[in-house]
Amino acid sequence: MQTASPAPVEVPRGLKGVVVTDTALGDVRGSEGFYHYRQYSAVELAQTRSFEDVWHLMMIGELPDAAQRAAFTARTTALRVLPPEVADALGVIARGSRAAGALDGLRTALSLLGAGRGFAPVYDLTPEQRREDALVAAAAVPTMLTALYRLGQGLEPVGPRTDLGYAANYLYMLTGEVPGARETRAIEHYLISTIDHGFNASTFTARVIASTGADVAACLVGAVGALSGPLHGGAPSRALDTLDAIGSPDKIDPWIREAVLAGDRIMGFGHAVYRTEDPRSRMLRELAEQEFGGPRVAFAVEVERQVEAILAELKPGRELHTNVEFYAGVVMELCGVPREMFTPTFAAARVVGWGANILEQAADTKIIRPAARYVGPAPSQPVPVV
Amino acid sequence: MQTASPAPVEVPRGLKGVVVTDTALGDVRGSEGFYHYRQYSAVELAQTRSFEDVWHLMMIGELPDAAQRAAFTARTTALRVLPPEVADALGVIARGSRAAGALDGLRTALSLLGAGRGFAPVYDLTPEQRREDALVAAAAVPTMLTALYRLGQGLEPVGPRTDLGYAANYLYMLTGEVPGARETRAIEHYLISTIDHGFNASTFTARVIASTGADVAACLVGAVGALSGPLHGGAPSRALDTLDAIGSPDKIDPWIREAVLAGDRIMGFGHAVYRTEDPRSRMLRELAEQEFGGPRVAFAVEVERQVEAILAELKPGRELHTNVEFYAGVVMELCGVPREMFTPTFAAARVVGWGANILEQAADTKIIRPAARYVGPAPSQPVPVV
Repeated sequence: MQTASPAPVEVPRGLKGVVVTDTALGDVRGSEGFYHYRQYSAVELAQTRSFEDVWHLMMIGELPDAAQRAAFTARTTALRVLPPEVADALGVIARGSRAAGALDGLRTALSLLGAGRGFAPVYDLTPEQRREDALVAAAAVPTMLTALYRLGQGLEPVGPRTDLGYAANYLYMLTGEVPGARETRAIEHYLISTIDHGFNASTFTARVIASTGADVAACLVGAVGALSGPLHGGAPSRALDTLDAIGSPDKIDPWIREAVLAGDRIMGFGHAVYRTEDPRSRMLRELAEQEFGGPRVAFAVEVERQVEAILAELKPGRELHTNVEFYAGVVMELCGVPREMFTPTFAAARVVGWGANILEQAADTKIIRPAARYVGPAPSQPVPVV
Repeated sequence: MQTASPAPVEVPRGLKGVVVTDTALGDVRGSEGFYHYRQYSAVELAQTRSFEDVWHLMMIGELPDAAQRAAFTARTTALRVLPPEVADALGVIARGSRAAGALDGLRTALSLLGAGRGFAPVYDLTPEQRREDALVAAAAVPTMLTALYRLGQGLEPVGPRTDLGYAANYLYMLTGEVPGARETRAIEHYLISTIDHGFNASTFTARVIASTGADVAACLVGAVGALSGPLHGGAPSRALDTLDAIGSPDKIDPWIREAVLAGDRIMGFGHAVYRTEDPRSRMLRELAEQEFGGPRVAFAVEVERQVEAILAELKPGRELHTNVEFYAGVVMELCGVPREMFTPTFAAARVVGWGANILEQAADTKIIRPAARYVGPAPSQPVPVV
């Protein structure tokens, strides 16, 4: 007796609003303009905690006490140094990725790092091994990204320092100079606020791969690939390009009107989930105004104000506001991060969120395998004879 | 005015039966035991066409005529030779992937190949560039896989031959010897029948990544990662391991009963979609019996017969039959493919299906971004002061 196939389940395009699974990692409340990591406001965490504290929260499940903080920091700081076989391959990877940049290089380097971890056969991986793999990978990402960037620029990589936090060490390895306290806190705010954000495409990619039982590196390289897509992680530098293209405050109104009327998307505005201001955008704007100020920040604020007004006028009811990418670009520029490193810097934060999502998904044994609707010609005809 | 968030859409676990999108690439009819590529039975294609013909069908949209076949074969055969920067890196990749094997090495090599393609910025990719990228990647996969395998064995890679078809050239580069006609057709049957099969986890991974606008390499490395998961591509060698563990015909009944009663999954049996015999399994069994025969094939057929009978007795109504992996392992063994290359060989076929799915998904501009249900503690408490 044959069992009939179950009826296909029809859902919104792009799986929008479709609940794939339960999660205890956090939530994005799109209509409230609020998101949280486990039980804490992500913005509040960014304003009061170090990157390592939030990393501990995501991976271990709770904020660390003093002893846990010291142990976690020592453990992850030691992991900043790459295994020699990966370090030695970075030159080859950087040359091979020249046209594509550090994010594509990161994908290759993470793949190599993961392959060398030697947890074969993969189906015997324990949760503890996966957690260790995720810590190893996340700790290595800043070292790999900054080395790939510098090699691409014809510069020597700058090795990690053990006396700097994750954020300060990232800027140090990128520029070769120990950053100021203002830049360190600014980039740390950005990195913490970007660790996780619901089932975005890269996080979902990581979870689909994890659902097959694949190892952490397999999940992360897929996630990096998804982040490289312009509809996902590819826009922060383009938001800044828009500021440059507008040029001066008097050009804002005509430039934006022309773009909106031409049907162009304004980079840095609009979000898949938020119907309010993006809470990350607000936090980063306040940070930029209070800590840095100056004409560049004032110009960005004025562009935001006018774009929101024009969009409300020309596209009423759409609730288009700045997303994280708009002020992320501004803040990263203020901190000396070169434009081509904006999306890679995003990856240096999100890798922690990916790791937490991979661990959570790997604890489930149900593979993610959806369906499609065939809309081509009926498969009735025999294959033509050659 | 705030827009209310739409209500979450509840669906079956693992998105089972959930229609993500339309496709014209083919369909799997689970209750009929039938699947097709575009409008043709996949089994019939495997029995009557070359791998290149079906590759052309998937990527170009139709079976080739004689002139198209000649042009497509010339084009893809030339692409078997790796760019020097990738060829030169294979030694480093093979050393770094020793513990994990050729599939993890392929992930790294594909990432590097893609990064070197130089189609930056990625958001300007045309459909023609994506198709070319997909052809380049698929043509390179056998060369990369076989070189990585041989380097891992301490052997020199064997370069591609231009006078052999895709399947024969794969076996040639793997073993260093031109395969016989019987082995060539057997592996070609397997490869053609494995090119595509609905929205399995690796194909779905490729499509999620493609939905971000990411380039072909980004999608493929994610797909390879998903295939490396034991719940997806990791089982063909384990099905053969089961044959070895059983050992002889008289041990089949007690061995299988003990495993089933212990709750163990019998490798090579059961499928997410088929409620009938897997049509790929039937085709490969007939091929093995007719073309090869011998005690090994007879033993596999007897194991299949007894397992199906015992499962029908102990798990009535579950409709557990052999899946593709059972006879895929048998056929690959008959063709001289080493066991650790079973899943990589699967990748050498599926890369064509991934490519076709990536092209189709990239033509859609809707990002795939589902949702999750937060089930942790309510985010009410303020972040504790350090």
